[in-house]
This record gives sequence, structure tokens and C-alpha cells, in this order.
Amino acid sequence: MNLVDQLKEILPEDRVSTNETVLLNHSQDESFHPANLPDVVVFPIDKKEVAEIVRFANENKVPVVPFGIGSGLEGQAIPIHGGISIDFQEMNKIIDINPQDLLVTVQPGVTRLQLNAELGKHGLFFPVDPGADATIGGMASTNASGTTTVRYGAMKDNVRNLEVVLADGSIIHTGSKAKKSSSGYRLTELYVGSEGTLGVFTEITLQVYGIPEVIVAGRAVFSSLQNSVEAATTLLQVGVPIARIELVEAASIRNMNKIAGTNYAEDVTLFLEFHGSKVNVDADIEITKELFEDFGCYQFDIETDSIGRKKLWEARHNNLNIMLHTNPGKKVMNTDVCVPLSNLAEAVEFSRTCIDESGLQGGIIGHIGDGNFHAGIVLDPNNTDEVKRANHLNEQIVKFALSVGGTCTGEHGVGLGKMKYQQDEHGKALDVMKAIKQVLDQNHILNPGKIFG
Amino acid sequence: MNLVDQLKEILPEDRVSTNETVLLNHSQDESFHPANLPDVVVFPIDKKEVAEIVRFANENKVPVVPFGIGSGLEGQAIPIHGGISIDFQEMNKIIDINPQDLLVTVQPGVTRLQLNAELGKHGLFFPVDPGADATIGGMASTNASGTTTVRYGAMKDNVRNLEVVLADGSIIHTGSKAKKSSSGYRLTELYVGSEGTLGVFTEITLQVYGIPEVIVAGRAVFSSLQNSVEAATTLLQVGVPIARIELVEAASIRNMNKIAGTNYAEDVTLFLEFHGSKVNVDADIEITKELFEDFGCYQFDIETDSIGRKKLWEARHNNLNIMLHTNPGKKVMNTDVCVPLSNLAEAVEFSRTCIDESGLQGGIIGHIGDGNFHAGIVLDPNNTDEVKRANHLNEQIVKFALSVGGTCTGEHGVGLGKMKYQQDEHGKALDVMKAIKQVLDQNHILNPGKIFG
Repeated sequence: MNLVDQLKEILPEDRVSTNETVLLNHSQDESFHPANLPDVVVFPIDKKEVAEIVRFANENKVPVVPFGIGSGLEGQAIPIHGGISIDFQEMNKIIDINPQDLLVTVQPGVTRLQLNAELGKHGLFFPVDPGADATIGGMASTNASGTTTVRYGAMKDNVRNLEVVLADGSIIHTGSKAKKSSSGYRLTELYVGSEGTLGVFTEITLQVYGIPEVIVAGRAVFSSLQNSVEAATTLLQVGVPIARIELVEAASIRNMNKIAGTNYAEDVTLFLEFHGSKVNVDADIEITKELFEDFGCYQFDIETDSIGRKKLWEARHNNLNIMLHTNPGKKVMNTDVCVPLSNLAEAVEFSRTCIDESGLQGGIIGHIGDGNFHAGIVLDPNNTDEVKRANHLNEQIVKFALSVGGTCTGEHGVGLGKMKYQQDEHGKALDVMKAIKQVLDQNHILNPGKIFG
Repeated sequence: MNLVDQLKEILPEDRVSTNETVLLNHSQDESFHPANLPDVVVFPIDKKEVAEIVRFANENKVPVVPFGIGSGLEGQAIPIHGGISIDFQEMNKIIDINPQDLLVTVQPGVTRLQLNAELGKHGLFFPVDPGADATIGGMASTNASGTTTVRYGAMKDNVRNLEVVLADGSIIHTGSKAKKSSSGYRLTELYVGSEGTLGVFTEITLQVYGIPEVIVAGRAVFSSLQNSVEAATTLLQVGVPIARIELVEAASIRNMNKIAGTNYAEDVTLFLEFHGSKVNVDADIEITKELFEDFGCYQFDIETDSIGRKKLWEARHNNLNIMLHTNPGKKVMNTDVCVPLSNLAEAVEFSRTCIDESGLQGGIIGHIGDGNFHAGIVLDPNNTDEVKRANHLNEQIVKFALSVGGTCTGEHGVGLGKMKYQQDEHGKALDVMKAIKQVLDQNHILNPGKIFG
């Protein structure tokens, strides 16, 4: 019996697909990594089915690759060795919302916006915001983060418990409902960010937050990148609990104005957001404004209403789309290093120089409070010269980040694109990771070829 | 050549001790677990020496047990199989303070108060406060937390990077200086809380915080435990960033008044602390007071000056000493469960009933914002009946916590005392932990007999 027929013994026929379009849809993600078809795509509806699929795969040494919504940026969901793509779109239930414990339990296929729509009815929200409407499963498996991480943390800080199917099909729970624990090894954090290489998630318990009484957005314009970074760093030292603080360099503001019709001062700008009670937000804004002025901020605008706030963040989020809009047929490679705050200004300036020298078009935006920034490089994926130059550029930026004690990926994960930097970044610690991978996946079926190659 | 002579080939003679008093000092901690002598105590001064000791131990299959200052509460530092006790008192250097990155790197023997004295000169502080003046190495190895965790997190949230000597004597770094990363497995969190069973720490990089402009302490008195817990939970839902919120039940307040000469209302009380700018702290206090009144708080006092604040927290922290003072010659067993907030009131009331039924004397205090509470039980360690009753009481409380999805230990760690609950709490996940332990410590030399038995 072949692979597909065997899977049809486990799942109903209509949830085991080798349809050409379905295979194609599961051959790639949002990155420019080359596509590769799975042999088959399955659509389980519960943990029991997932466990049976994985057990079968393990016994037959067939790769299993979890697939959320395909919004990954480093090829994690691409089945580079074929095998079974496990699509979680049928496992998209919000299992439990518990306002008193500020906890929610979801299946992996629930998306971020779907979750927040439901949480909103209870006055709650889940803050981790990678931009895309990713699935919670995908976000947990890459340790995703984003614009609000400066205040609310990354996925690793907000996943309380994971239900995981191990290679042999058995099911474990990595944590509990307790807010903290010193019991046993911290498997939750080990599994968050493991990109499907240690097990397959079937349930995720997240901590959630009360929606703030007041949300105010703002923009602060500086004449110097160095000053804007120092202003942001000082703000964090002082302890202002800012919810978003995003750097957009001057070149990207010029693009925004040209395409999105905004009329922003074309200088280095921090996009801000404040969450809290009215009194506290007012006080935080006042402190921020005064402190920023000490660092040469010459324009400080706030948007208290939700429409103005939406417009402001759309301008920031559409940065990538704007670049694509002006370059039809091209794609964007997004670098993703994270450096210590004291090296951030230098790292951004270095990256700008590298972009300019490369002859490619690119913009820099940064989660400045975390030291994480993206240089978005426009390229034609079929133009080998452009791809080569973009890869070189990426490598220059990664090497700089590692040289100052940073990391090659702040939030996108390793996948295929950052494998080549793992030895440089982790040294002998990579052997420990490989030993853990080996002991938990002896047949190399769990998303093989990712993180370690 | 015997063990001691061989170690003297690695270290100078005066840092290899078999002195009877030295052995005795390394045979126990603050817990009431039975003492056991190590064969030898060594005092390395740097990572190179630690690496050589561990490599030697691994080659000769001799246990190595790290020892900080002996303030542990579950026997983690007790060398139950003898072997080498590695004392870190000579590795007590603060290696680097980096105010711009809000990072500090220390050797494991640095204590919490030593670190804060030094950080204070830079306007910084390290918030994790387990009460005792523990070493940072000990705190990292047990994933310690305490009164400020509700705002600043536990050790796992504040350790950025660990330098670890593996069983074979090789040295790894688990993280980087970046605030966040999605690169490789999260070894930092795996090692935090591993109690010396996966490797020996030689350097620890912590994130630190700016000292708040204003610190205000307060006390809020309620007539009902249930109401006080609901008030605290609601405060967290609303998002007030309270820095400390500690529950003390009425019986313990009565003890305080009797012994410490305070004159507090003898009812269930929340001890509070607010950190921030003056405006924000004032606003937070106002919101807290109003909200607490809705839950029946009938007395709300604040202490703005540092002397009043110190007196208030001394009263809270001395709770344990007061119990010992009134019971000369006795010891205290401290339970340590953590439960979901929605089960906290019930858990505390259940524990109070169990204490009363046991006939033992005991007081309950709780890190109420985390759902973590301690029932301190007074007992004579030589009275087998009292020890038996205390153990039974502990077991009742742990079983209750696990039945509502909590954990057997919120902050003290597993050590010897919580081993028997690991299977119940973790189920099949315990097999994953054991597999990781086995692959990273094939000769069972790293603090053998802890966590897994």
C-alpha cells in the first residue's frame, strides 16, 4: 500500500489530498526560499488524528511538516524532503477563554486576528503581533514577536502550556496553568521556537491581557538616527512602559509619503503607542515628549482617536507593500537581526551603508526597544545577480550582529535561511541542541532539514 | 591516588578541603532534609578550574554538586551521594555592568544584595527577590522568584545568557546579549531551574532595571480572604503594574502584632508596593484604593518614606522568624504550590483547614499576583510524629494544587522534597526531561539524585 492509501486508513479520504493545487499551496511560504512539493497534505481535526499521523510517519520514516497559514518568512513550512504536510486549518477552535486566570487555550490553526476578535468580547487581547495574521501554532513554533514585544514579550513569554505530539505519537503537556513554576525542566520554552523539529503542537495555552482603558499612538521625528536610538534606550531605562516603539528611517518615510499619501516629515521617525489608564498614559506621553526633546526630537504628534491611530500604524505596516507596489514583479528579502541596544544605531547605519553599496533598493524599520530591525531588500527572485547581492547583504548584516553579541534572527526563526549561521552564533551549544533533537527524533521525521540542515 | 589528591593536581591545596567543619557546612541547606557529607569541597576561582573539576569528575564517575550559600529550601545542594561539593564563594565577581543595554554579567557566587549594592551606583537594580540573600547561581539554578515577580518576572524571565560547563568539561553559552532571539533551541530557559543536573554555571548575564523614581508601599485590609483575592486578580486584569502584592492571612498578622510590636488590623491583609514616576504611582494608588473598596477593603494605608516602607516589609519578611521565635528549637517546613488565580482563595482556605486539622502551628503568606503561596509549618525535626503530620499536610496541599492545574513548586524547586510529585505533575513529559538528562549527563555525575531521584 502506498503512503496516501495508508493515510486514508487513518483519516477520511476527503482530508487526505494529493490535488496538484493543494500540494502547490503547501510547497512554500511568504519567503523567497525555493518551493518543494509535499507528497501529500492531510487535514486532521483533533489531537488523536495528529498523533496517529505522526506515529505512522515515524514507523515508516516519512517526514512530517506542520503547516499553519504559510506566512512564515524563513521556509519553516516548506517540505524540502517531501513527505506529509500537516495542515491545521481544520484545527482552528478556541477551546477555552478564562478571563479570571487571563488564560486562553486554542488549537494551532487559530489565527491571531480570529483570537483577538473573540477575546475582545471578554475585554481581553493577545498582544503578540508579528504583522501577518499568522496562526498561533506557527507563531509558537517560531517564537514570533513584533511591535508590542517591547512591553508584552515574545511568544516564549506568553505561552503557558503546550500540548505536543512526540515523534512516537505520544502526547505530552509542557507546562501547567500556574503563572510560574520551578518544577522540572522548562519544556515549554524549549518547544517554543523549535519549528516543528521536536514535536507537533496540538493545543496552546496563552496568557492574555485586559484591553487597556486608553490607547494613544504618536510619532516623534528626529534629525539623527543616533539620537533617536539613544532617546528610545533612555526611555526604557527610565521605565516608561511604552507598548510600541518602532523606528522608521528617513528613506522609508519618503516612500510612505510618495505612495501612501501621508505628509510626514522626511526624517528618522519613531512610531509610538501608549497603553494604560488615561492618567498614566497622559503622564507617560508627557515624560516621553520631554525626554525626546532632550535628544533633539523636533516634532511630536499624537493620535488619540482610533481612526488616526489606525492610519498611522497602517502607514508603518504597509512599508513592505509600498516597496513591492513601486517594484511590480519583485519580492522582498527581510533581514531580521537583533543586537544589544548600545549597538543598534551603529548596526542600522552599517546596514544602510551596505544597502546603498549593494545597488539594491531597501528600507529599514526596527523594533527599536528590542534592538531588532529589518532591512527589507527588493529583489527579482529570478535575477541570480540580485539574489546573490541580497544574500551577501544579509550576510554582512548578520556578521555585524554576531560580532557585537547579537543574534541572526530576532523573530523570524532559523528555517532554511539562517541555518548557515547557527554554528557561528551558538558554537558548542549547537551540539547540545543537536543532541536534544537526536534523542527526541531518532528517525529524523520531524520537519527534517530545518534549523540544523 | 585518591580523590582528594587527584583534585589537588587540579587546584592549589588550600582550595581543596576535607576539613570536618567545611564538609559539615556543605552537607545541608536551610531545609529540614537530612544532611549528607560530601567527600571533598573545592573552591574554584574561574571557569577553567570548574571545567577541569567537572571533566575529572566525569572521567572518574564522581558526583559534582554546586553550592552557593546554602539558602536553598529543597535540598538541592545536599550531596546525597557524596562526591565533590563545588563552592562558588571565590567566584563572586561582578564581571560587567552595562547600563545602556540594561545588562550585568556576574559569576555564580555573587549574592543578590551584593549585586544590588553595586547596581545602585549606576541607578539600576535587579528585582528578583526570594527573601534570602541567595547567590545568583543558586537563584538561576532553581528558577527562583519572589515578591516582585508579579511585575518583573522570575529568574527565567531575567537571565539573558548562561555560561555552562557540560558534563565533559566543555563550555557553552546558552544565549546572547540580544533582548530576544528565534535562533535555535532556547537553552537558557532549559538550564534555568535545572538545579545543577544538566551542567554547572560559571557566568550569568542578567537583565536589570532602572531604579524607579518613586517607590510607595501600602497595606490593604479585607474582612474576607475570597474578596482580597478577587480584588488582587481584578487589579491585574485592569493592568495596574503593581510591583508587589503579598497576601498575609489574619492568623499571621496576629503573630506579627504579638512579636514584632506592630499594631495592624488583625484581618486578611495585602502588602503592596508601587514603582514608577510620581504621577503614575499616585494614579496607580488611586485606582487600587477605589477598586479594593469595591471588594470590601476597609483600611488602606500607604508608606511613602523609605523607613515606613522598610518597617512594613520587615514585618512581612520576618513572618517566618516570628514563628521560629515563638517556638524555640523548632524548624519550619515551607510548602510552595502555585495555582491558577481563580483557584487561589479556595487553595488558601483549604490549606488553612488542613493546618488546623493537623494540630500543627502554621501561617500562610502568598505571592498573590502569581497564585503562589507558602504554608509555613512549625515542627520539631526530631519528632517523627510532627514530621509525618507536616509531610501529610504538604502532600494534601500539593495534591489540591495539581488537581486544579497548578504546580507542586512555584519557586523553591524540586530538589529532594518535590521529586515524588514529578510523575503526577508532568506525566509523560517527565520521560522527555529524563531523556534530555540522560543524553547530557551519561555518567550521572551532575547533582545525581535530584529532580528525578
